[in-house]
Amino acid sequence: MVKVGIVGASGYTGGELLRILAQHSEVEIACITSRMHAGKPAYKVHPNLRRVLNLSFEDIPYERVAERCDLVFCATPHGASMEIVPTLLEHGVRVVDLSGDFRFEDVAVYERYYGKKHVAPDIRAAYGLPELHRKEIRRAELVANPGCYPTSIILGLVPLLKAGVIDAPHIVADAKSGISGAGNKPRETTHFPNAAESVLAYKMTAHQHLPEIEQELRRFSSEVRVSFVPHIVPVIRGLTSTLHCFLTQELSPEEVRKLYEEYYMNEPFVRVLDVGEVPRLSAVRGSNFTDIGGFAIDGERERVIVVSAIDNLVKGASGQAVQNMNIMLGFREEEGLRSVGIHP
Amino acid sequence: MVKVGIVGASGYTGGELLRILAQHSEVEIACITSRMHAGKPAYKVHPNLRRVLNLSFEDIPYERVAERCDLVFCATPHGASMEIVPTLLEHGVRVVDLSGDFRFEDVAVYERYYGKKHVAPDIRAAYGLPELHRKEIRRAELVANPGCYPTSIILGLVPLLKAGVIDAPHIVADAKSGISGAGNKPRETTHFPNAAESVLAYKMTAHQHLPEIEQELRRFSSEVRVSFVPHIVPVIRGLTSTLHCFLTQELSPEEVRKLYEEYYMNEPFVRVLDVGEVPRLSAVRGSNFTDIGGFAIDGERERVIVVSAIDNLVKGASGQAVQNMNIMLGFREEEGLRSVGIHP
Amino acid sequence: MVKVGIVGASGYTGGELLRILAQHSEVEIACITSRMHAGKPAYKVHPNLRRVLNLSFEDIPYERVAERCDLVFCATPHGASMEIVPTLLEHGVRVVDLSGDFRFEDVAVYERYYGKKHVAPDIRAAYGLPELHRKEIRRAELVANPGCYPTSIILGLVPLLKAGVIDAPHIVADAKSGISGAGNKPRETTHFPNAAESVLAYKMTAHQHLPEIEQELRRFSSEVRVSFVPHIVPVIRGLTSTLHCFLTQELSPEEVRKLYEEYYMNEPFVRVLDVGEVPRLSAVRGSNFTDIGGFAIDGERERVIVVSAIDNLVKGASGQAVQNMNIMLGFREEEGLRSVGIHP
Amino acid sequence: MVKVGIVGASGYTGGELLRILAQHSEVEIACITSRMHAGKPAYKVHPNLRRVLNLSFEDIPYERVAERCDLVFCATPHGASMEIVPTLLEHGVRVVDLSGDFRFEDVAVYERYYGKKHVAPDIRAAYGLPELHRKEIRRAELVANPGCYPTSIILGLVPLLKAGVIDAPHIVADAKSGISGAGNKPRETTHFPNAAESVLAYKMTAHQHLPEIEQELRRFSSEVRVSFVPHIVPVIRGLTSTLHCFLTQELSPEEVRKLYEEYYMNEPFVRVLDVGEVPRLSAVRGSNFTDIGGFAIDGERERVIVVSAIDNLVKGASGQAVQNMNIMLGFREEEGLRSVGIHP
Repeated sequence: MVKVGIVGASGYTGGELLRILAQHSEVEIACITSRMHAGKPAYKVHPNLRRVLNLSFEDIPYERVAERCDLVFCATPHGASMEIVPTLLEHGVRVVDLSGDFRFEDVAVYERYYGKKHVAPDIRAAYGLPELHRKEIRRAELVANPGCYPTSIILGLVPLLKAGVIDAPHIVADAKSGISGAGNKPRETTHFPNAAESVLAYKMTAHQHLPEIEQELRRFSSEVRVSFVPHIVPVIRGLTSTLHCFLTQELSPEEVRKLYEEYYMNEPFVRVLDVGEVPRLSAVRGSNFTDIGGFAIDGERERVIVVSAIDNLVKGASGQAVQNMNIMLGFREEEGLRSVGIHP
Repeated sequence: MVKVGIVGASGYTGGELLRILAQHSEVEIACITSRMHAGKPAYKVHPNLRRVLNLSFEDIPYERVAERCDLVFCATPHGASMEIVPTLLEHGVRVVDLSGDFRFEDVAVYERYYGKKHVAPDIRAAYGLPELHRKEIRRAELVANPGCYPTSIILGLVPLLKAGVIDAPHIVADAKSGISGAGNKPRETTHFPNAAESVLAYKMTAHQHLPEIEQELRRFSSEVRVSFVPHIVPVIRGLTSTLHCFLTQELSPEEVRKLYEEYYMNEPFVRVLDVGEVPRLSAVRGSNFTDIGGFAIDGERERVIVVSAIDNLVKGASGQAVQNMNIMLGFREEEGLRSVGIHP
Repeated sequence: MVKVGIVGASGYTGGELLRILAQHSEVEIACITSRMHAGKPAYKVHPNLRRVLNLSFEDIPYERVAERCDLVFCATPHGASMEIVPTLLEHGVRVVDLSGDFRFEDVAVYERYYGKKHVAPDIRAAYGLPELHRKEIRRAELVANPGCYPTSIILGLVPLLKAGVIDAPHIVADAKSGISGAGNKPRETTHFPNAAESVLAYKMTAHQHLPEIEQELRRFSSEVRVSFVPHIVPVIRGLTSTLHCFLTQELSPEEVRKLYEEYYMNEPFVRVLDVGEVPRLSAVRGSNFTDIGGFAIDGERERVIVVSAIDNLVKGASGQAVQNMNIMLGFREEEGLRSVGIHP
Repeated sequence: MVKVGIVGASGYTGGELLRILAQHSEVEIACITSRMHAGKPAYKVHPNLRRVLNLSFEDIPYERVAERCDLVFCATPHGASMEIVPTLLEHGVRVVDLSGDFRFEDVAVYERYYGKKHVAPDIRAAYGLPELHRKEIRRAELVANPGCYPTSIILGLVPLLKAGVIDAPHIVADAKSGISGAGNKPRETTHFPNAAESVLAYKMTAHQHLPEIEQELRRFSSEVRVSFVPHIVPVIRGLTSTLHCFLTQELSPEEVRKLYEEYYMNEPFVRVLDVGEVPRLSAVRGSNFTDIGGFAIDGERERVIVVSAIDNLVKGASGQAVQNMNIMLGFREEEGLRSVGIHP
């Protein structure tokens, strides 16, 4: 059994890693840390884990974590990971980092969008979107697990961009996220009376996931510019993006769908829906699938609409992190990730 | 007191007309009809009206409705209104029709999008968006009350189009509607286990409100083409549209806001938010206001984001219908419409 | 115009007082205070008030509030009111206090359940439930506005107790409250991912509203003991109580209903539903009504079920406070409180 | 591999059986039937099953189902099962029936509460609550899977009744169910605008689960009478019951908890919470656990409050059905049922 650890295991992504790893047959959870909850059993924070996992949070130096583990997940906030990851790597531990700290090729972009100086600018990571970077992930010491919005939007756009059939500088990505994406810390926008019966656009032109989206999409067309507007909707889990693109050539819905079908043919976690079907959040709730559908064409207006959906905590965070671990360690990619979506 | 009637008063827009008219000091509700609920007191269908309104539904010929009323609201479904309105007009009654039947200048557009032959193609109506057509509404015999999506999207775009600062053929309107917009008849998509914890795009390129939106916006630029995608979100009431536009000239958020401030300066029911503020559904819940905000500029990508919000049953339907009535009858435009939004 | 002030006007009950008073024709809002938001316009905190109320929060000494007002609402937290109210009363201002500080005849009960020493134990207030204490309220200098749970439960039980037909020591009141009842401060239990898709019993035997409920019900039977369990449910506004009572004599549903009909015959804000009807939260949402229904009898098990529903922020707080003010000042009791419930 | 079939596989409980059985290593799904969806792949109805299960609905005679299966789940409505089960049993197939048709020892009780004549009154079934009837289930040809409310309420009350510490004729069970419990057919009460922001008591004294609850509880005290009031709350999945009991002797919370701990010591699917903890629906969402907590004592009022929670579609239906199958077929009881709850 490979020994894995989780730094920052008391948040939502930490809890979700535990839920998934508890069903993984190739790894042993050797260590989970939380400063605030040190000493408490995991189930006191993640009540679904009662009787499922018999582990308690610890508050120990990262060197000690490294000694006890072969691979570590950093489920730590932006800014914290860059302080921790170098130590872990120095101790020869492989790392999957769920923060934004190592996702950028250009550190200046990170510093601009995250508003902080990077303390480990020379450390390189593979960008952990297996559908694009499986080969680099396999041999990486450090994998930077993608953001939830980028996962949904990049997977929804790549086949169109690769085929060169859309107007790359005029892409609109209107995304709607469940509120667990904001983490487990109560704040004004997540207060139920504010968040229920509400839809709220935020960071309309300046969300930190925008440069991540564009970095990856520009591998397919250097002209890509995305009008990305995130919204929070009264949903616990789930993230869906409506991708409005302008076509540069005539295409039928079936032809568009075929681009996706072919691009994702061998992907275990991308499901391409039939023409006319729209992804439903319940179909992916709790599961690692990305569902992509829509494929609506408005010939008169020369546009195509594609819709993608994920569970923001699974394919948008911890599920993808485990998928990356599986690739890094040579396990079957689906191992631990066979949970079926909770519908309805 | 002017005598008004409501044909089809048992649906959500009928109930909302009753709620509003019950607080109106210049009219008397002379007659409410419902085939299905004939004989029942209104409060048996609209439980909020218990003790508020002492009226029962009737099932009587439209001629009889006309005899008893000075003005009639048709809260009837698409296709039914065109059968009823001619009779009412012939009897000299003024009409506000909440269906889509009389919203189009070109009957062929109606027939294409609504999938039915128009039986009264020669009857002309004023398009009941007071912010654009107050003068025609004042003297109209028939007002075609706008759809909920068009109200939100048209009001959100007109100042930009009028100023000629956006790329008219590449407008994206990504709209999110509460589920009451689908009416009071249970169906699969409105079944709670399907609708809760969900966001669903539908009629992605073919919604019947699209030609209505373009008809009105083309008064400002003949080149307008709108990528309109409606979604249902787990909200009872409220509709918000995120309007993604590409700028044709450099503008600051303040300059954009000023276009709105000036355009709506004298409008009683449009509130222009401050730069950086995003409309909240609770601010308009139960009220006739349209809130417009956002005004985010991404200079690098030359785009502007504007967000508008209404209560789909009030400014998006029955409130606007009463506003139209007030204009037609020369009442104060706010009469009966002073309810403040229910926040939170 | 009578001049009124609100101390602590930035919370939910403060906002709701403003929404209601903005529609009141006999009073002028002379002063609203908030320490945290001093200087800000009210609409920045309560976005529904934009264009409706042109007032800003102030942070001024209570003496100054007293000078400018004839009547003051204290929408301050438990413990704060008892520090403020004596000053206001000394200055000859009449007060409606929305906290729990002055609701108890026996200060020891307050101190036990609220866990703090009372600093003004000699000040007497009328308990502001008009259906029970209209006469005392009329002449009171200080009215202690009831809690939301007590309002719903007391009104739902009094006719049965008065008639002496139930087993007073074995009453079960299982209550479900919307989350706005917890105030506007985000906390773990109100965090959307925790509160949505959830029902949570809390303070199962020790809620501070329990002694308030029993104090009032014991006016009708000294043996009353209530098994009161409050729950939070994923609802913004609304509070409903299911009252399970054991009958001491045989009664039909119609006979039970008649007890309510007679008891509340002249009450402007209590609606007694028909036998078999159950109150719906949407019928009272935003309105000052209490709806009471159910009236189900299980003869075999000798029990009766009554269900009552209110909007926790209106009849359960600010609406009732204005109703009390209307009584104190001799206005029509419905003044300002004619808003019809927002259904759906 | 044992061959299993599902009759009526297109409903919510059918879909949930498929989700669970897809993760079961000892059975093969040989046949799924649906009259309405015959010919369609299962994932067209249950979108979570896309790529997970490659099966289509059939519409074939029950004899044919029997020939292809060793064990059949009837996920058919009340009244339909009693027409089907006899045929299946005659063909030597073992059956788990999820309807109410075979839950009663006294057919007259069934006929009274379900309002129909029983067509197979002589067929006996084991009542499929493993915590009470594991031995009979093991050897049964037919298991009657319990209702969701009874599962939650019976498990929550048995330790108290067995210990003889509560007043058996005065038990109050106030239960709150998610809306998936009403099935997948849209109706007025499940229409989102009615069901959201709402709590609704229904069948207050006459729910068909009441006699089922009392039948099982009377095994422990013949005097049991339960005031059972079910409510629907705006939750997709999850059911929680607040059990109000009057104590006949003094007990501490720890003593009460110990009764539960001991009673359920060896049960794989009952988790007894710590004193003061209240079960959360997210802890059981998607899982087969029953969580029991509360254990609050109000000595003054001589009462004890216990709260239990399940996922109504899992332990309340399909998960328990698979647990029963595992017992009948001698599999490990947890097989296929290891999914961890989806929290948050």
